[in-house]
Amino acid sequence: MSALERLRDELGDIVDTTAATLEAARADRSGQRSAGRPLAVVHARTADDVQRTLRIASATGTSVVVRGAGTGLAGAANAGPGQIVLSTAHMDRLLEVRADDLLAVVEPGILNARLNTLLAEHGVWWAPDPASRDISTVGGNIATGAGGLLCAKYGVVRDAVLGLDLVLADGRMLHLGHRTVKGVTGLDLTSLAIGSEGRLGVIVGATLKLRRLVEGAGCTIAASFASVREAAVASAAVTAAGVQPAIMELMDAGSLAAVHDLLDLPAPAAGTAQLTIQTDGPAARDEAERIATVLTASGGTVRMTQDPAEGERLLAIRRSMHPAMAALGTTLIEDVAVPRSAMPAMFDEIARIEREYGIRIPTVAHAGDGNLHPNFIFDGEQVPDAIWDAAGALFRAAIRLGGTLTGEHGIGTLKSRWLAEELGDDQWQLQRDIVRVFDPQGILNPGKVFADA
Amino acid sequence: MSALERLRDELGDIVDTTAATLEAARADRSGQRSAGRPLAVVHARTADDVQRTLRIASATGTSVVVRGAGTGLAGAANAGPGQIVLSTAHMDRLLEVRADDLLAVVEPGILNARLNTLLAEHGVWWAPDPASRDISTVGGNIATGAGGLLCAKYGVVRDAVLGLDLVLADGRMLHLGHRTVKGVTGLDLTSLAIGSEGRLGVIVGATLKLRRLVEGAGCTIAASFASVREAAVASAAVTAAGVQPAIMELMDAGSLAAVHDLLDLPAPAAGTAQLTIQTDGPAARDEAERIATVLTASGGTVRMTQDPAEGERLLAIRRSMHPAMAALGTTLIEDVAVPRSAMPAMFDEIARIEREYGIRIPTVAHAGDGNLHPNFIFDGEQVPDAIWDAAGALFRAAIRLGGTLTGEHGIGTLKSRWLAEELGDDQWQLQRDIVRVFDPQGILNPGKVFADA
Repeated sequence: MSALERLRDELGDIVDTTAATLEAARADRSGQRSAGRPLAVVHARTADDVQRTLRIASATGTSVVVRGAGTGLAGAANAGPGQIVLSTAHMDRLLEVRADDLLAVVEPGILNARLNTLLAEHGVWWAPDPASRDISTVGGNIATGAGGLLCAKYGVVRDAVLGLDLVLADGRMLHLGHRTVKGVTGLDLTSLAIGSEGRLGVIVGATLKLRRLVEGAGCTIAASFASVREAAVASAAVTAAGVQPAIMELMDAGSLAAVHDLLDLPAPAAGTAQLTIQTDGPAARDEAERIATVLTASGGTVRMTQDPAEGERLLAIRRSMHPAMAALGTTLIEDVAVPRSAMPAMFDEIARIEREYGIRIPTVAHAGDGNLHPNFIFDGEQVPDAIWDAAGALFRAAIRLGGTLTGEHGIGTLKSRWLAEELGDDQWQLQRDIVRVFDPQGILNPGKVFADA
Repeated sequence: MSALERLRDELGDIVDTTAATLEAARADRSGQRSAGRPLAVVHARTADDVQRTLRIASATGTSVVVRGAGTGLAGAANAGPGQIVLSTAHMDRLLEVRADDLLAVVEPGILNARLNTLLAEHGVWWAPDPASRDISTVGGNIATGAGGLLCAKYGVVRDAVLGLDLVLADGRMLHLGHRTVKGVTGLDLTSLAIGSEGRLGVIVGATLKLRRLVEGAGCTIAASFASVREAAVASAAVTAAGVQPAIMELMDAGSLAAVHDLLDLPAPAAGTAQLTIQTDGPAARDEAERIATVLTASGGTVRMTQDPAEGERLLAIRRSMHPAMAALGTTLIEDVAVPRSAMPAMFDEIARIEREYGIRIPTVAHAGDGNLHPNFIFDGEQVPDAIWDAAGALFRAAIRLGGTLTGEHGIGTLKSRWLAEELGDDQWQLQRDIVRVFDPQGILNPGKVFADA
C-alpha cells in the first residue's frame, strides 16, 4: 500500500485530499510557496493520531510537515509534493489551569489569544504575544520561538514553557521538562525543541509557565522625532535609564508616512519617526513620567495618556503597519535583532543599504528589545534577486553589530542560506547532527532551517 | 608520549601533579569521592589552554573532568584515576559590562558574588543566587543549572544566559547564542549546554543577561506555625494569593530546632516550623503587608521588619542550616522539587518516609518555587544503603507528585541511577545519543549524569 492508502486505511476521515486544503498547505504568510501540492493533510484530533501518522510516514519513508494555523513568516510550514501535512490545528483544548502553580497544560492547536481569554478568568496570562496572536497557535509559537512586543519586560517563549510532549519521527512519545519552577534532570530538551521549526518532533502538548495578570491601568506615550536616528537614540536612552516599559515600538519615516496615508491621517513632516511606549503595573504612571523626561531630553515631542481608549488609538498606528505595507506592494518582512545600544547604528546601515541598492526599506522595530522589521517592497509574487541581495547585506550588517538574522520569525526556507554565516560551519554541522539523532531518516520537515534536502 | 608528557610538553607550568592538588580534585561538596587521584590538573589561563588540553585528550583518548570551584553537590566535578582535570578557576575575568544592553561577558571562573560586586558599580546584577554564591563560579552555576533563593521571582540560570563559548571534546570552539534579547537561529544550543554538567563541552566564556538593581529597601517577615504542614499550606497560599516575594524559605521542626541549638537560641516549641519571607522593589511594603495577612489567616504568628539588619538576623537562621546539619553528622543534602501546590503533600511523604525507614529527615525548602532540601544525616563517610533506599523513596514520591528528583543540584554521580525513572528510557537514550554527537569518543566527564562509562 502507498503512504496515502495506509493513512486512509488507518485514519479514515481525518485524511484530507481536497484540492483547496492541499493548495492552502503550500504556503504560510512568508510570501513563499512550495513547488506543488502535498500528498494529504491529516487533521489530527489526538496525540494518537499524530503517532499513527508518523509511524506510517516512517514505515514508508514519507516526509512530514507539521502545521498549525499557517501564520509563520519564514516558510517552515509550507508543504510540497510527496509530503504529508500533519495539522495539529484541531488539537486545541486547554486541558488544565493551575493558577496556584502558575501553569497551564494545553494542546498545540489552541490560538494564543483564545488561550489568554480563557486564562484571564483565572487571573493569569501567558506572556508570549506575537503580533499574530489572534490567529496563531501556541504550538506554532513554541515551534518557531515566536517573539512579540512584550519580550523585553516579560521574556521570550523559552522563558514561558516548562515542558513539552513531543512525538518523534518514528512515533514514540517523549515527555520533556517539568511542572516545577526548577528542574535540572539531564539535558534541557524542552528548550532544544522550542524554535526547532518542526525538525525534531511534533509538539502534541505543552506545559506553560503563566504570570499573574498585571494590576492597574497602563500609560501610553507617543513621541515624534525629526529623524529615525534620533528616535533610536532616544529608545536606547530609555533602556539605559533603567526604566522598563512593557511596549516600546519604533516607526521610521517611511512606515509612519505609509500608515498615515492608509488611515487618512494628516501626513507627518518629512523624516518624522515615532516611538510608541506603554508602561504597566503599579508604577506605570511614575515610569511613564520618567520615560517622558528622557524622550523630551532626547529631542522628542511627547504626548502621554492614561486613557486606555486613547492609548489604543496611539498604538493602532503601529498595528496598521502590515496593511500599510501591503498597500504599497508585495512585502518581504525582515526580522534582524541587535543589542539595544546598536539600534542607531543599525538604522544607519539600513539607510546605507537603501542608498546602495536604490530601494526604500520602511522599518518598524520592537525598540525595547532591539528587534527590527525592515520591509522590502516589490512587485509580483517572487522576491527579486536584487531584494535578496539587499536582505543579505542587511543580515550581515546585523551580525557585524553583534546581532542576529532572525529575532523571532525563524529560519524556515527563507533564511536557510544565511544560517551558517551566523552559526559558523562547525555549529551548523553539529546542529544538523542533533537533528539526525531525533530523526535518523530525515522525514521531519526536510530542507527547512538547514538547507540540506 | 603519554598524555601527561604531552600536556607538560605543550602546556608547561599550568600542568599540576602535586599530591594535594590531585587529592582535592577527587571530591566536590557532595560527600562523594572518586576511586583515586587523577592524572593531572591543568590550570587553564586562556581558552587556548582549554583547546590545547582537549586536543591532547582527544589524541590520546584520555578523559577530562572540568572543574570550577569544586562546590558542586552531585559529584559531577569529581575526578578519578587516569583522568585529566581541566580547571577553569583561573579564567576569572569580567571582560565586558554593558549596562545599556543589560549584558556582561565573563570568563567561567569568576565567582558569582565577586561578579555581582563588580556589576553593582554599574547599577546591574546577575540574578542566579545559589547558596554557594560566595564560593561558586559562574561557569559552574551555568554547567549545573544552579538555582537559588530568588528563582520564583527572578528566574533560573537558563533565563539569565544569552550565549556561551563552548570548546568541544576535540578542541574546536563554538560560539553559541546571541548578544540580543531575541534570537531564533537554529537550535538553542545555549540552553542545551546549561545544566549539561560537563558532558557536552567546556564553557570558556558566557554572555550573561543582567537586570537593573532593585530599588528601595525590602521587608522581611518571619512566621511560626504549629506544624510544617501548616507552614507549607501557608506558603502555597501566599503564591496562590498572587503576591510575589523575592525570597520565601521554609524550615521544618527538625531544621529549626537544630539551628536554634547551634546558635544558642531558646528552643522553639515542639513541632514549630517557620517561614522566612522577603519582599523587594517599590511595592515591598504593600506586598509584605498582604503576605502577613495571608500568613496570619493561615494560623501563623507573624513578625515583620523593614530594618535591613533585623531582616538579616531573621534570614541568618535559615542560612545556618548547613552548619547545623553538619553538627549532627554527615549529611546527604537532597534536592527534590514539586509544583508549589504539592508542597504540603510532599511534606506528608517525607513524614511517611521518616516513619517507614525509622530516620529523621530535617528539611528546608525554597517554598516560593517548590524546591525542597531534605537532609539525610548519618555517621561515617559513605552513604549507607538504607539511606539511599529512603532517598529513592523520596525521589519517587516527588515524581509521583508531578515533581523532579533534582531542582538545582543536578545529577552528577549521585542520582544517575534514578535519572531514567524520571526521563523514561526513550528520552534517556536520546539524551545519551546527543552527548555522543558533541563528544563521539566519550572523553568528557564519562559516567556522570548518564551511568554509562
